Amino acid sequence: MENAITMIKHDNLADRLLDAVDDKKNPSVVGLDPRLNNIPDHLKKEAMEGSSHPFQASGRAILKFNKGLIDAVHDIVPAVKPQIAFYEKYGHQGVKAFIHTIEYAQKKGLMVIEDVKRNDIGSTAEAYAAAHLGEVDTMEDRKTSFDGDMVTVNAYLGYDGIEPFIDTCKEYGKGVFILDKTSNPSSKELQDLKTEDGKMIYEVMAELINQWGKDLVGERGYSSVGAVVGATYPEEAKKLRKIMDDNLFLVPGYGSQGGTADDVIPCFDDHGYGAVVNSSRGIDYAYQREPYCDSFGPEEFHKASREAALDMKDDIITSLEKGKKIPGGW
Amino acid sequence: MENAITMIKHDNLADRLLDAVDDKKNPSVVGLDPRLNNIPDHLKKEAMEGSSHPFQASGRAILKFNKGLIDAVHDIVPAVKPQIAFYEKYGHQGVKAFIHTIEYAQKKGLMVIEDVKRNDIGSTAEAYAAAHLGEVDTMEDRKTSFDGDMVTVNAYLGYDGIEPFIDTCKEYGKGVFILDKTSNPSSKELQDLKTEDGKMIYEVMAELINQWGKDLVGERGYSSVGAVVGATYPEEAKKLRKIMDDNLFLVPGYGSQGGTADDVIPCFDDHGYGAVVNSSRGIDYAYQREPYCDSFGPEEFHKASREAALDMKDDIITSLEKGKKIPGGW
Repeated sequence: MENAITMIKHDNLADRLLDAVDDKKNPSVVGLDPRLNNIPDHLKKEAMEGSSHPFQASGRAILKFNKGLIDAVHDIVPAVKPQIAFYEKYGHQGVKAFIHTIEYAQKKGLMVIEDVKRNDIGSTAEAYAAAHLGEVDTMEDRKTSFDGDMVTVNAYLGYDGIEPFIDTCKEYGKGVFILDKTSNPSSKELQDLKTEDGKMIYEVMAELINQWGKDLVGERGYSSVGAVVGATYPEEAKKLRKIMDDNLFLVPGYGSQGGTADDVIPCFDDHGYGAVVNSSRGIDYAYQREPYCDSFGPEEFHKASREAALDMKDDIITSLEKGKKIPGGW
Repeated sequence: MENAITMIKHDNLADRLLDAVDDKKNPSVVGLDPRLNNIPDHLKKEAMEGSSHPFQASGRAILKFNKGLIDAVHDIVPAVKPQIAFYEKYGHQGVKAFIHTIEYAQKKGLMVIEDVKRNDIGSTAEAYAAAHLGEVDTMEDRKTSFDGDMVTVNAYLGYDGIEPFIDTCKEYGKGVFILDKTSNPSSKELQDLKTEDGKMIYEVMAELINQWGKDLVGERGYSSVGAVVGATYPEEAKKLRKIMDDNLFLVPGYGSQGGTADDVIPCFDDHGYGAVVNSSRGIDYAYQREPYCDSFGPEEFHKASREAALDMKDDIITSLEKGKKIPGGW
């Protein structure tokens, strides 16, 4: 029994994520970006009852909303990706809601990608890694804190800022996605600079990510060290898929940011693996937009989100089929 | 009266920070990096009494320790720089201690540089900026959340990730320090790549930072948009001082990381302004190292930190004098 637990604890993250993708036959993940303005009124009203501070009420409303979303999509998607900025807004009350969201999602069988983009060096990076993926020291024993499955990180500081995360990934069977080519227009200001060797910065970063991840390649051929590659740059993605031949891609920018299902196909390998595609706003607030708002009111926000998540799945599957990349057995 | 409040609220951050430096005749700041292992036992024991969870006890121990440090140095330094990773470790209890540390430091007349290195794009970056420097929406009115004076940010994503912070700085009289050339050895992996135009990435970043900060230059000639430039690279700092002629530098790496007082002098302009130099471990845990441990035990950790802060001030002033950069009137 002890061996079994140890084995589970040390399973390779990339293997676990790809298994979860197979299990759901779906490489799309749902971003949990709670915006108070878009959370249905009935949840906010419930949250205010018995709250002693507006931040406490905000944290409670966020958690209620997330639980509704998680209940609605947990059998459809392999993972959720909460963006911590929307929680951190409300100080410690918001962070509490973030941590409870992670717990609830994992209890429902979902993996959790913490979108935190943390970055620092040495013992500071160790503290972040321990907080989000490993265990932290207390006055008693060591304890898990946020305990996400994966985090996003920023490697502007080089390997000094990445090594502590990688060490923690090895020890706890967790994963990281390192920012490479991001989905936003001004990503070009730094990422698209050309070096004297004729490589773009995002290509140099891709080579570093690939090299950093070599020790964590799992049985399915992918490393627990992955990369963030935006859906809005399909040409760049094609090149990056070759450089990072064993790195998982986390692909933001589908939907609201203009990336289409066809745009994300270059992020997948020839067998239809190697990428997870995120949508946040498009799923979270489906009840506020066409066509879902015709069928579902605010009280049924979760049903609208479920429909939107199913539509996204179909959309990506259709494009994978069109690109002859659909995994066997799906 | 209303006008006076508005005026105070909109004061330029760079002016405020330079005034605070003049007021203390000291350009050094104290990093607050609480490590449970190094916090004196008597504080940890007090913190455990009545705590229901080890993270609550950890947060309380951190806050007690920080209050001791702040009381000991508030009349010596212009600002403190809490590094959020060491708080975030303990989840929402740690973040609560971080927020209370900011409040306490400001109450004691100190400015607070939140070392958070946050980064994201669009509405996510807006959420971070609102959380740390501005006001956030709640179900009632808008409220301040962390309410630091300055934050560190990472610009790997380009201006999309910086603009929301700059807008918030304008509205609330706050500031940012953008990572440029960091103090760690592997900073060279990305920051020292040479572009096809013959510029180093940290030089390109410096030009961007300089340009981004133009709208926020205050009466004293410096912008509220500053840069992080490590103490460990004095040659690079010399070049960067020229490129970023109106950007404040936050200089980490003094002391524990090997940077000397002479090394940081190139970060200052010819009049001895334009930089604040941080030390964390060297001040926080002075009671554990020579020569301070000879005079002060754990119960007097704050007295040791005060001595160390005074020694750091003297060290930098001596080097400023040697470099003929001491501000007039100090």
